[in-house]
Amino acid sequence: MKKYPMDYLLDVTARIFTACGTPPEDAKLVAQLLVKANLRGLDSHGILRIPQYVKYIDGGQIRPNAQMTTVVETSTTAVLNCNWNFGQLGAHRAATMAMEKAREHGSGCVGMHGCLHVGYLGLVTEMIARQGLIGLAMCGGASPDGHWVAPWGGREGRIGTNPIAFAAPTSEEPILVDFATSNASEGKIRHARDCGQKLPDQWVIDADGLTTDDPHALYGDPGGAILPLGGPLGYKGFGFSLIAIILCSFLMRAADHRMERDSNNMWLLALDIGAFMPPDDFRQDLEGYIAYARSSKLAKGFDSVIMPGDLEFAHEHVCEKEGVSVPDEIWSQISEVAESLNVSLES
Amino acid sequence: MKKYPMDYLLDVTARIFTACGTPPEDAKLVAQLLVKANLRGLDSHGILRIPQYVKYIDGGQIRPNAQMTTVVETSTTAVLNCNWNFGQLGAHRAATMAMEKAREHGSGCVGMHGCLHVGYLGLVTEMIARQGLIGLAMCGGASPDGHWVAPWGGREGRIGTNPIAFAAPTSEEPILVDFATSNASEGKIRHARDCGQKLPDQWVIDADGLTTDDPHALYGDPGGAILPLGGPLGYKGFGFSLIAIILCSFLMRAADHRMERDSNNMWLLALDIGAFMPPDDFRQDLEGYIAYARSSKLAKGFDSVIMPGDLEFAHEHVCEKEGVSVPDEIWSQISEVAESLNVSLES
Repeated sequence: MKKYPMDYLLDVTARIFTACGTPPEDAKLVAQLLVKANLRGLDSHGILRIPQYVKYIDGGQIRPNAQMTTVVETSTTAVLNCNWNFGQLGAHRAATMAMEKAREHGSGCVGMHGCLHVGYLGLVTEMIARQGLIGLAMCGGASPDGHWVAPWGGREGRIGTNPIAFAAPTSEEPILVDFATSNASEGKIRHARDCGQKLPDQWVIDADGLTTDDPHALYGDPGGAILPLGGPLGYKGFGFSLIAIILCSFLMRAADHRMERDSNNMWLLALDIGAFMPPDDFRQDLEGYIAYARSSKLAKGFDSVIMPGDLEFAHEHVCEKEGVSVPDEIWSQISEVAESLNVSLES
Repeated sequence: MKKYPMDYLLDVTARIFTACGTPPEDAKLVAQLLVKANLRGLDSHGILRIPQYVKYIDGGQIRPNAQMTTVVETSTTAVLNCNWNFGQLGAHRAATMAMEKAREHGSGCVGMHGCLHVGYLGLVTEMIARQGLIGLAMCGGASPDGHWVAPWGGREGRIGTNPIAFAAPTSEEPILVDFATSNASEGKIRHARDCGQKLPDQWVIDADGLTTDDPHALYGDPGGAILPLGGPLGYKGFGFSLIAIILCSFLMRAADHRMERDSNNMWLLALDIGAFMPPDDFRQDLEGYIAYARSSKLAKGFDSVIMPGDLEFAHEHVCEKEGVSVPDEIWSQISEVAESLNVSLES
């Protein structure tokens, strides 16, 4: 494990994607979004994706420089086809479109299909909040390949880990909600399996439907499933994940048989605060509420009330000063990819 | 406990509210929405509210016949002031406005303040789905009085049980999601206290922040708090409830100091499916997905996969034939109220 300065990681990442045929400005944006995930402590959505994305580019599953197209559009809604360009770039475009519509008409609702990985979904809503609007976004795909999560009453995967993200502006950092609607992401279970770790209670059931602490149970044949959020109230987590798959997949004409291949879709809503109330009053009310929430006496084992985003922003402040820790194995994979593309790792 | 025919309950309820000065058409609608909650098995949002609402009308907290006003409006957004008329009527008006905007522009986003109890929130989104659109709605108030739920890391109530509801149309019953973002509603805990029952695990913490099965712990001085949805992942439930309070309260200019008194606000979004894809294709894709979800092998203790709404629709089918069970104590309270208003209980 070694630490690397943020600017160095940004530069290397952008140069790798440029070397694969990505326009320099696009490569820079993808690099910013991946490195931001590392800064925030969300390593599973960070630069460890570089080798995977480069492989996808080689295989034609990601098409850098593909032209995104607007499939249908009204004054306040649109469906964007990412045309298998980077999901991050599609999400950025969708958010920009939604904000333009919201600024003009109060709200903008834009969905996207034709993309693989959108990355750190919270960044899409955060981008909207940093422009002074409110953002709500979800991801969800119709393909059974990504359906790791059991429906309520079932023991086989029938839905994705479908995250819901939301951001609202304050005078300081935004409120930034970004959570899977399941008890765990598949990446966390894969990580536990690869490290020989046991799982916490209630994350996974085996093929017989019994809860297990063995991560291998998810990947058996027959495999198990991840449980929806809520434990004994898992019908709630399943319900919230259904909202995501309906808005992202079925409303975005992206059910399997309507797309050339599996797509990890996104749906987002931008709201212009000024259409509802004076934005300064909104911030003042929200900030007053945050102070009141933080004033609660503490639960056992906590030294503060934690608002969504707190831990991620704190992690970022440390990493900006001290650099980003990258496990040697991940760095070695990135180095190999760089070498194969004749990209120098010198800063 | 006795069973009463649906039509009889509708008639009595409407006549009681008419006798309190509610215009007959409005009284009929409130009656329909209350009785529908009973039909669906959600008794806490049904006719047991009659004595409470009549008391509120007497005290001026509910103002039947009050004119609702549109505070601000764009082509696709609006804030409605219910002016302390029945929350159910305000929600119905807000949904109608949102659908009109959605049909014209693709999406309609309408919030409401100036109301007490909105009732069975799922009905608002169901009304939208039955018209062929998609509905998403949330409730949340800024007043500490309703803040039964602890923030993540805290042990004092700082947020409401804020439900999120969603409905999407199919050729049969709609998908109907409607859940509190906490582990339990306050009503369930009050009910357990009144019946001398113990609570399930993880519902409530006492004033020291320790989980307890004693419902009295919530109401002590100092009192405890309800836990957010998620158990050890309760930061997710807290995050989802924050989405609701921000959209419903702070965006609806309804923070305490901006309203004449506490309001239980609502925020809703209607989406016109045709703005995104052909509605028949949407239904076909969604129905295909539902069949696939139901095809999962079953978890232990289940005899089917349960989609959101399944249990409520099944309950309704039985009650339509067999009548609605009303506990004697509740019926006696309703009878007293009827008598005091000279409303006959003869059918």
